[in-house]
Amino acid sequence: MFTSIFTRAIKQSPASIRMMSTNSSITARAIIYSSYGEPIDEIKCHSYNINLNELNENQVVVQSLATPINPSDINQIQGVYPSRPSISIDSLPNLLKPSSVSGNEGLFKVIAIGSNVKNLKINDWCIPLNVNYGTWCTHKLSNENELIKINENLSINQAATIAVNPSSAYQMLTYYEKLNPDDWFVQNGANSQVGRAAIQIAKSRGINSINVVRNRDNIDELKKDLYSIGATKVITDEENESKEFSKEIKSWLNGKEIKLGLNCVGGPSATGLIRKLGNSGTLLTYGGMSMKPVTVPTGLLIFKNLNIKGFWITGNIKSIPNSRIDTINEVTKLIESGVLTEQKYNETELNLDSLTDDQLLEAFINALKNSKSGKQIIKFN
Amino acid sequence: MFTSIFTRAIKQSPASIRMMSTNSSITARAIIYSSYGEPIDEIKCHSYNINLNELNENQVVVQSLATPINPSDINQIQGVYPSRPSISIDSLPNLLKPSSVSGNEGLFKVIAIGSNVKNLKINDWCIPLNVNYGTWCTHKLSNENELIKINENLSINQAATIAVNPSSAYQMLTYYEKLNPDDWFVQNGANSQVGRAAIQIAKSRGINSINVVRNRDNIDELKKDLYSIGATKVITDEENESKEFSKEIKSWLNGKEIKLGLNCVGGPSATGLIRKLGNSGTLLTYGGMSMKPVTVPTGLLIFKNLNIKGFWITGNIKSIPNSRIDTINEVTKLIESGVLTEQKYNETELNLDSLTDDQLLEAFINALKNSKSGKQIIKFN
Repeated sequence: MFTSIFTRAIKQSPASIRMMSTNSSITARAIIYSSYGEPIDEIKCHSYNINLNELNENQVVVQSLATPINPSDINQIQGVYPSRPSISIDSLPNLLKPSSVSGNEGLFKVIAIGSNVKNLKINDWCIPLNVNYGTWCTHKLSNENELIKINENLSINQAATIAVNPSSAYQMLTYYEKLNPDDWFVQNGANSQVGRAAIQIAKSRGINSINVVRNRDNIDELKKDLYSIGATKVITDEENESKEFSKEIKSWLNGKEIKLGLNCVGGPSATGLIRKLGNSGTLLTYGGMSMKPVTVPTGLLIFKNLNIKGFWITGNIKSIPNSRIDTINEVTKLIESGVLTEQKYNETELNLDSLTDDQLLEAFINALKNSKSGKQIIKFN
Repeated sequence: MFTSIFTRAIKQSPASIRMMSTNSSITARAIIYSSYGEPIDEIKCHSYNINLNELNENQVVVQSLATPINPSDINQIQGVYPSRPSISIDSLPNLLKPSSVSGNEGLFKVIAIGSNVKNLKINDWCIPLNVNYGTWCTHKLSNENELIKINENLSINQAATIAVNPSSAYQMLTYYEKLNPDDWFVQNGANSQVGRAAIQIAKSRGINSINVVRNRDNIDELKKDLYSIGATKVITDEENESKEFSKEIKSWLNGKEIKLGLNCVGGPSATGLIRKLGNSGTLLTYGGMSMKPVTVPTGLLIFKNLNIKGFWITGNIKSIPNSRIDTINEVTKLIESGVLTEQKYNETELNLDSLTDDQLLEAFINALKNSKSGKQIIKFN
């Protein structure tokens, strides 16, 4: 109620821009790179001013609330990711050499809007409509149409990471094979963020999951955890790769065939999933953590009429119209209804009022160094 | 004209069956096996009588004109092929133990028909509607609905081998990727019967082919031969597997992407094809001559959105309604119009009038022994 009165009042003001703060200029900081290489060596902090009085009518200024470190962000800086922003002198004001801003995913809050902005208002939460947005920053000058409004009922962590991991799980379980209640799918890397989201989404639809994880000292604890979020079965890599154990798996299926496999590992683990697929089943590969290729036995490929496909959510943005927005809307509902619960993050909190260039850079370098030990997220307050 | 008068005359006869010969009984011989193992050890000849006076109204008796030795026939006897006829005491009359008749493909001539047969007449050529028909025989008692009439304009060899190799080439170039004139596909095993048919079908549609063959002493002769039937480019396995050579290939494409790959080899040869596919390209695997699996680099699979599928014409009979009859009709047109020319066969001719059990068995054993040195076909006259 207050917001709507406030907005209307602002709209009646003669100024061409509306903003929360009375300061007309803010210092924005961004993590940039100018050449491809190891991220901790390549990234720098660049600071510049955004004048809130000089917005075009469709422009908005957003302030970052949280941004995660994703593998694709790292691969972009390494120069090995096929979707990359251009390294250009025009990426930001006052650059000394051609650069790109790192980061593809993150949650922002609107802090200023141009006179003709229609779909966003001050304090709205939003995420980038596309990849290559450059999310590793404190503030950003954008066009309204580069952003999607996000429901503020979500937690900051969930909203900041909605576009990649849970969205991948949603699309893989929705766009490829028609999975009905009591059907089965199988996945490796089941304790990853994608894997855990897939377990929860499947459970909510009555779909059974066979979840492959690495054996470890606390395997029973991990199994208990995955069962608690809805896993039907949890098995180890050794069991996945054992022909003997496949009889045990067959006994679980009650005559059903496994329609879908989700692979983020490759090598023998992927081949283990392939051996479990039923006739005309599909294996989707969305990662290759073992650095080994996907190896498909010829007889299975031919006589079981298997489909071995890649899954790339960034590719789907172009190839499946509206997939980004539709998926985010559906995943938002899944979070609001409690199907998708908050995952574990290693959080670094930064205070925007006192932040320096060095502190921002250090936070990202540390997060990059720790990125193998858990999901890293940088938060701003 | 003569045929139609003859048929009508026959139809007016009071007999419940119509036949060419006045003999009421013939000796039929079939190559059978009773257990799975190496074909030359397992196969036997079984002879029995067919009484031409005792046909049911929808039955026909056919006499074999020609039957090829296909890899799937061998794999069936070995027990390693997923589609197999049952080994049953009812397979043929007078069996001493449960048996199956070998062979899945062949051309027959109708020599007697029951009173209500509508779609076949004496002297018509026909092939089995389905696999597992048991084509390695001299004669067979069938139902009309087990056979498809075949145009007698074809050569005996072409008609006898229409259902597997050229039909596979036709379906692979037709059912999966939309290939327009000037598009490209790539295949290994290009000098196989499927490969040669694919070259000719593609050529007739203005589609370009890159054809991978094993290097050999007479490689220039082979290249000349494949160019003469319509190959656009012929390369060796080494060139297919070379990253360096891919630049040369790119220069041929004129900006086009390769949409389809056909693989019957597996291993590094299949991976070479995969590396050549464009975005959203499809690799169909219809064989595995190297006995090595299909290995797909993870990055290509994901970022090129590749589709790696199996192709099995026998599976398509069930999964794509009418595919068998439709394909044979289309391939018949391609043969009649000269697009598909006669391939090379190693022929063994047998005279039905003087044939003994031992001669029939010996002919098939010799053909099996020679089956790696060229396509074997047994012909009856």
